[in-house]
Amino acid sequence: MITAQAKAVHGADQSFTSTEIERRDLKAQDILIEIKYAGICHSDIHSARGEWGPVQYPFVPGHEIAGIVSQVGPEVTKYAVGDRVGVGCMVDSCGKCVHCHDGEEQYCLEGMTGTYGSVDRYGQYTQGGYATHIVVTQDFVVRIPDALELDAAAPLLCAGITTYSPLRHWGAAPGQKIAVVGLGGLGHMAVKLAHAMGAEVTVLSQSLKKKEDGLKLGASHYYATSDEETFKTLAGSFDLIINTVSAKIDINAYLSLLAVDGTLVNVGAPSEPLPVQVFSLIPQRRSFAGSSIGGIRETQEMLDFCAEHGIQPEIEVISADRIDEAWERVMASDVKYRFVIDISTL
Amino acid sequence: MITAQAKAVHGADQSFTSTEIERRDLKAQDILIEIKYAGICHSDIHSARGEWGPVQYPFVPGHEIAGIVSQVGPEVTKYAVGDRVGVGCMVDSCGKCVHCHDGEEQYCLEGMTGTYGSVDRYGQYTQGGYATHIVVTQDFVVRIPDALELDAAAPLLCAGITTYSPLRHWGAAPGQKIAVVGLGGLGHMAVKLAHAMGAEVTVLSQSLKKKEDGLKLGASHYYATSDEETFKTLAGSFDLIINTVSAKIDINAYLSLLAVDGTLVNVGAPSEPLPVQVFSLIPQRRSFAGSSIGGIRETQEMLDFCAEHGIQPEIEVISADRIDEAWERVMASDVKYRFVIDISTL
Repeated sequence: MITAQAKAVHGADQSFTSTEIERRDLKAQDILIEIKYAGICHSDIHSARGEWGPVQYPFVPGHEIAGIVSQVGPEVTKYAVGDRVGVGCMVDSCGKCVHCHDGEEQYCLEGMTGTYGSVDRYGQYTQGGYATHIVVTQDFVVRIPDALELDAAAPLLCAGITTYSPLRHWGAAPGQKIAVVGLGGLGHMAVKLAHAMGAEVTVLSQSLKKKEDGLKLGASHYYATSDEETFKTLAGSFDLIINTVSAKIDINAYLSLLAVDGTLVNVGAPSEPLPVQVFSLIPQRRSFAGSSIGGIRETQEMLDFCAEHGIQPEIEVISADRIDEAWERVMASDVKYRFVIDISTL
Repeated sequence: MITAQAKAVHGADQSFTSTEIERRDLKAQDILIEIKYAGICHSDIHSARGEWGPVQYPFVPGHEIAGIVSQVGPEVTKYAVGDRVGVGCMVDSCGKCVHCHDGEEQYCLEGMTGTYGSVDRYGQYTQGGYATHIVVTQDFVVRIPDALELDAAAPLLCAGITTYSPLRHWGAAPGQKIAVVGLGGLGHMAVKLAHAMGAEVTVLSQSLKKKEDGLKLGASHYYATSDEETFKTLAGSFDLIINTVSAKIDINAYLSLLAVDGTLVNVGAPSEPLPVQVFSLIPQRRSFAGSSIGGIRETQEMLDFCAEHGIQPEIEVISADRIDEAWERVMASDVKYRFVIDISTL
């Protein structure tokens, strides 16, 4: 076993404490990564607090991982010691089903293995990236292009791919009008990516507080959803709406902003159901959809796209003793736009 | 003005009475149709009773119309006196917007003109097909192929196109698994059409009462939704689900039956909202959509498809004095599978 230093919570309402965790000894295709940076995702908080189902404690979150390869198993062909690599929300899948074959391992029919809070194929409970090291099979490791800083690359592994994948799937391109609901960690990436894909981007945020930011990030328009006029002005406007908000919204009001054949895609996951009026869908053949991260091949494509277009998230790097405080600030939407833990301070 | 005999209701809770209505004198592109048969659609009842918004009385329903051209305006080029023709749910649209140009007049940005309960471009309140005659501009008239009987063709103009269009739009084809929820007027057409398109069809009905019928109509499988095992057995099975039921269903249970990238399309329109759990969508990139009838070009295509494949609805032809009774039976789901009024008895 390989011992890693980590930050863990020992209960749903507990603060972080330093701990040691075990990583498996390298199998033939495994890579040992020395983690340099780990992003803080809202999902970390939902999961650690048991809000998305029961978890085991101690619990080490973190699925936005950037680091350096420090050791490789004997059959590893894709990476070498010293390579700059990343790991996102999943570390394994069955490898045999139609979706794994199609490179969409996130939709694995047997269920992908989450980077934390899952049981892996060896029967071990997975622990995430708020740690000094992680062992991952090479097929679930991606290469971080030299043009991307390691700290800024980390949030791309979840916030980046979670917004990139639906934008690609629903065909973001020049001539398309796309709205992004919420300007947080995911939302600010959606704006940058959709803009880089050539779409005309509108931010729909509760207030106009971050308007200046939104326009700088690449949005052409910025509207406050607290203003009822917004919904009248923009009725029937958008080909695609990416909803990054995990709070309950008035879903029918947002659906009314879609053009004919438009789709509203939730990447945020509210725990309460959203009451959809079927008449919000039928008369314009609208769709309400969900999307989950992206496959490994698409994650690599996204990183390369970001490198090529000079896109990286807006981050605030923090030391490991400030994770509790950062979580509080994430809960209060007080972050511009992603916290990244400097793992060297662990 | 042209006078037509009609059956009308004079209030939300009134029975039908015989009445005379006025049709406009023929404009240059207009066609006068002698109506032979009119199908009874559940929408007729919802509309006449004001359940989908206020209507004017006297109210003449009927948007599944089959008849014979009896007179044409001077600029009519598409049809001649004696032609067998049909009219569906719409009789006009702006003709200028992107959707009209694309032949999807049902999504006209100015709103299409409904066959009944709308105000047309001449300021007249439209009255439907429970009548001896109707005047319609030639672009909203379709040709009924010789291979189709006029009485059986009538329900194709709504029940047929409403199911044909989403099947085509979402790519029904060999290799696809399609479920049809509800085996009524729309459902039985969905089964016949999806089967003819080569898909493997499953009926999901409350009970197994109509199982024999369902299999004869073209379904390969038939399950009762009152049996909880159904939802376990079929989890993640379908590429497409066409929901024809306009009552409230447990939408998340039905969404759980979709495979990755599957879509559940509502063509039934429940008045209550359906509470969608976002976790029913995200982990498999599922969509919940709606679809409204089809364009005129596609309606013609559907009629030709039915003629070519020998498809026609199962109908019960009634005389005009039995409309009230037929409506009661539609409300009680006691119809196999569509009532058609013989207008010669009016």
